[in-house]
Amino acid sequence: MRQNDTIVAISTPPGVGGIAVLRLSGPDALQMALNHLSVDRLEPRRATYCRIGNLDDGIAIYYVAPNCYTGEPTVELSCHGSLYVQQALLQLFVDGGARLATAGEFTLRAFLNGRIDLSQAEAVADLIDAVTPVQHRLAVSQLRGGYAKELETMRRQLVELTSLLELELDFSQEDVEFADRHELRQLLSRLMSHITRLLDSFRMGNALKRGIPVAIVGRPNVGKSSLLNALVGDDRAIVSDVPGTTRDTIEETFTVDGITFRFIDTAGIRQSDDLVENMGIERAKQAARTADIVLYVHDVTRPMSESEGDLNNLCGVLQGKKLLLVCNKTDLQTRGMAMNDNMVAVSAKLGRGVGDLKQAMLDIVRHDMKEDERVMLTNVRHYEALQRVGESLRHVDEGMMAGLPADLVAVDLREALYHLGTITGQVTSEDVLSSIFSRFCVGK
Amino acid sequence: MRQNDTIVAISTPPGVGGIAVLRLSGPDALQMALNHLSVDRLEPRRATYCRIGNLDDGIAIYYVAPNCYTGEPTVELSCHGSLYVQQALLQLFVDGGARLATAGEFTLRAFLNGRIDLSQAEAVADLIDAVTPVQHRLAVSQLRGGYAKELETMRRQLVELTSLLELELDFSQEDVEFADRHELRQLLSRLMSHITRLLDSFRMGNALKRGIPVAIVGRPNVGKSSLLNALVGDDRAIVSDVPGTTRDTIEETFTVDGITFRFIDTAGIRQSDDLVENMGIERAKQAARTADIVLYVHDVTRPMSESEGDLNNLCGVLQGKKLLLVCNKTDLQTRGMAMNDNMVAVSAKLGRGVGDLKQAMLDIVRHDMKEDERVMLTNVRHYEALQRVGESLRHVDEGMMAGLPADLVAVDLREALYHLGTITGQVTSEDVLSSIFSRFCVGK
Repeated sequence: MRQNDTIVAISTPPGVGGIAVLRLSGPDALQMALNHLSVDRLEPRRATYCRIGNLDDGIAIYYVAPNCYTGEPTVELSCHGSLYVQQALLQLFVDGGARLATAGEFTLRAFLNGRIDLSQAEAVADLIDAVTPVQHRLAVSQLRGGYAKELETMRRQLVELTSLLELELDFSQEDVEFADRHELRQLLSRLMSHITRLLDSFRMGNALKRGIPVAIVGRPNVGKSSLLNALVGDDRAIVSDVPGTTRDTIEETFTVDGITFRFIDTAGIRQSDDLVENMGIERAKQAARTADIVLYVHDVTRPMSESEGDLNNLCGVLQGKKLLLVCNKTDLQTRGMAMNDNMVAVSAKLGRGVGDLKQAMLDIVRHDMKEDERVMLTNVRHYEALQRVGESLRHVDEGMMAGLPADLVAVDLREALYHLGTITGQVTSEDVLSSIFSRFCVGK
Repeated sequence: MRQNDTIVAISTPPGVGGIAVLRLSGPDALQMALNHLSVDRLEPRRATYCRIGNLDDGIAIYYVAPNCYTGEPTVELSCHGSLYVQQALLQLFVDGGARLATAGEFTLRAFLNGRIDLSQAEAVADLIDAVTPVQHRLAVSQLRGGYAKELETMRRQLVELTSLLELELDFSQEDVEFADRHELRQLLSRLMSHITRLLDSFRMGNALKRGIPVAIVGRPNVGKSSLLNALVGDDRAIVSDVPGTTRDTIEETFTVDGITFRFIDTAGIRQSDDLVENMGIERAKQAARTADIVLYVHDVTRPMSESEGDLNNLCGVLQGKKLLLVCNKTDLQTRGMAMNDNMVAVSAKLGRGVGDLKQAMLDIVRHDMKEDERVMLTNVRHYEALQRVGESLRHVDEGMMAGLPADLVAVDLREALYHLGTITGQVTSEDVLSSIFSRFCVGK
């Protein structure tokens, strides 16, 4: 699968800027670069000022294989960031025999050359897409390989289990149980609980990565839309000082201490205040179903019994969710209320208490995150693969319980190993690779 | 005017990409970088892989002053091109005492530290804005300093003139003419013709940079709009494979062999075919007035006498312009026509002859460009300053002719020197600098 051609791309963001970086990677990278540079040689890793063709003056850096990103000879050229220079330099090297890199192809080569495993390659794409601190932290941790190490430990334990069983298999005619089945099952049980823990972390990991899903529900005119505005409103500027940020995708979110909260069915909320309010209990149930946190808004000028009735109705879907009772319109009604831990008093209109509400939401997430967020499953492909590993191991367990012969048990163990291997890329297919790397931008 | 703080910016284009480059420049650049890097030192110009804070892994390069772009200690960090990383790294260094760079501030420092003169700094902005090969070539030539050298030669000659005259001044009471006035006037005349040549190159230089202005004129229904479409049509894709290109500004243009032609009053042409055609002779005159090349479209199914009448009417505004008579609708009328060098037969509808027309337009420009396009005035600020230099020198010449005393003549010479100095930045003001550098992007 190793490729013998030399690829080229602009690795910096598309558009006009002070400088742009062109990257050449492959066996002919150095020679192709030298063909157009005003210098005779490039000392490895030394930033060398030179003319590039008759096009530009810039800095060239040569990275010797395998100690560089792709694991292949690589040359990076820093040039002026004009559209013309970028286009003309690409043309220059394509005319000189290089091929335009496809999306993610530099990282694909890093993977194919054994510089990183597949989970790390995926982390590179996550890192580049990261907008919030948590998305970023999860990606960095995955990229730096803590997660890959954990998977490797699991793999070694599985290999050990398999080899013990297969040893037994070799002597099966002699009817001897070499492997201590009790010990095997203990090892197996440790592995399974490890996998369960990782699978459990997926919900939180994925929520952290995409934003914790929050539903705002409540009766008509209790101020759901005002509350949404109050929560989201002062957060619009977060990434706006980096030009090129599109707010569209993260419009109805806010971020506190690096944790992003993402509102569900905000169209319904916004709409319901403009037109006839039609946010019935069914719609509330549906929104609550996909949320991790449900904000039930109570209008303090109304009797509490109304809301209590609703909450009883919602009871079924609130199982496993975190509920916060938001007592709104405290600007209109100031008499004392019996508050508890799951209640927050706010005036969405005046913005009063909104900070407390955000803190309460943050506390919920922090509590769920526990201490160890270093290894957290965030990738749905990994989640599905680990589910399959877990399933195979359950079969192994059942087989051993039932006293199945070692060769049958070993089949399931090898299947577990196979699925684990798809995460790190020890086992992989063209299809999986192309779907993973198509997420990338060109130039990475 | 030298500044003592350290500035920071992302120098790559705004947005998400494989990698982004952060640039720190100023006395504390190295220490500020080392405060957050996982290495203890940075060897000059060596690409060093390291962790950057807890944020990212990347490549750091330290450039020792004064042998680098800004002439100050500079550190460049290549990081992952996510919005979050870019934003967080900026924040990291701003928290560490750096100041966010303003537009063009790195280049401003390069100028203030004497690395480049002001005309070269302006060329950097031109280079980054370049979209066509000619814009690019003009900017590169200005940046590489051929033009700056020419200005410097002029300046030295002016200084020589001035000092000769001032020597005379010192001895004026003795009523001696030290300087050979004949020789002085010869030197002056050479200077003035040099300046005239540069001023003359401005029209072409500016046209090349912005696109050669072309007017299409002619009677109603001769096919002006079809001709415009035929000329512009197949050129839409030129820069489209570099993402981020906006076609808006270069919509009604086409480029042949690197020369861009820009159509004037295309709104009038497009409109006139849709609605009642109102392209009267006055409108045609107005368009022709601002054009370098006028395409007069004649419908070959109509008598030539009609067009001849129009051309006689246009005669006044066509002075100094290049006229091409485009005989259109050759698909309808195929009988032989008496053609000459300034006539091109086309069928805009079928696209026939359009290539010949483009070649004829190109020939006109090539003829005007002559051999030497290396030093060509493209900047309106320089044009105005050189006009003032020329004016002052005319006063000098007149003064010497009239036998004015040396001290009076020297005043005009010093004024010429002053205006020349504003081009290269030897004489400058905050206002001029800020207007020049506000054109830049941040990070350059």
